[in-house]
Amino acid sequence: MEQRFSGQIMQRAPETPARRPTLGEIGINEFAPYLMNRIMAGWNANIAEALKAHDMSTTMMRALAILSISSPVTINELSAYAVTEQSTMSRTLDVLEAQGLVRRQRRPEDMRIRDVSITEEGRMAFERVWPMMHARFQALFDGVEEEEYRAFIATLRRMLRNVTKLQQ
Amino acid sequence: MEQRFSGQIMQRAPETPARRPTLGEIGINEFAPYLMNRIMAGWNANIAEALKAHDMSTTMMRALAILSISSPVTINELSAYAVTEQSTMSRTLDVLEAQGLVRRQRRPEDMRIRDVSITEEGRMAFERVWPMMHARFQALFDGVEEEEYRAFIATLRRMLRNVTKLQQ
Repeated sequence: MEQRFSGQIMQRAPETPARRPTLGEIGINEFAPYLMNRIMAGWNANIAEALKAHDMSTTMMRALAILSISSPVTINELSAYAVTEQSTMSRTLDVLEAQGLVRRQRRPEDMRIRDVSITEEGRMAFERVWPMMHARFQALFDGVEEEEYRAFIATLRRMLRNVTKLQQ
Repeated sequence: MEQRFSGQIMQRAPETPARRPTLGEIGINEFAPYLMNRIMAGWNANIAEALKAHDMSTTMMRALAILSISSPVTINELSAYAVTEQSTMSRTLDVLEAQGLVRRQRRPEDMRIRDVSITEEGRMAFERVWPMMHARFQALFDGVEEEEYRAFIATLRRMLRNVTKLQQ
């Protein structure tokens, strides 16, 4: 599983004849979607396990994380940002609201839209899990210096724009 | 959701006092795990949708992709590489074997281990879906040149090693 491809993976030059490299030629360890799926599966499983000690699910944590930065947001927005289906997010908000961590309110000018906002208790609940997440985040990027991290983020932001276009 | 943090995200200097930045200070769009989860959700959904035209599930595709590069492998290895639970992988291999795309064989020197290998038909089945995947892969990295891609992969490989340590 340690193959390398010495050619150009990103064949973009217009004069290049359209010879598509195989996955074997690229090498699976040079194929970013494969690496990213493996990394995120490990990361998400690790975070989910650590959240159990806080009686919190990944979806609850994601909702609180997003709301701690941007509040209020609609359930639509929250589902998209949290990468969670709307039905799952609605059930999660039921739990969070029962615990007093979020509030849902119909928008006076459009009663079909429900805005979700975080309460002070909600902010505190996220602040309690953040040190655990931040420590793991630093472990995930162990050996990656600031400049490399900035470049990595720049590539990710471009990919997020590209993947959004892919879905249209 | 477009906040930026002008400080050091990767605080590593030992002389730095341990002041942990909040998620709001880092900015969620500078927090790599968030971006990666969003990108991979979009990518995986897009690939799953496109695979339907080939009567193929994501797990089937992943199994064939891995086996097209490395065959035989154990079901354990295949599950880990394909980021799929073993029970799901076993059911997927039932389907692939019935279609004549893979073969499972007990290892003569240790009958508890079952090796999975790809058939010629299996290779051809993956070759049929690869052009679709490769085109989307190029769209995902639209605007990313070779050097940037190589740097991105180097960071991902380091992260994969780090996340493996996180799970021990």
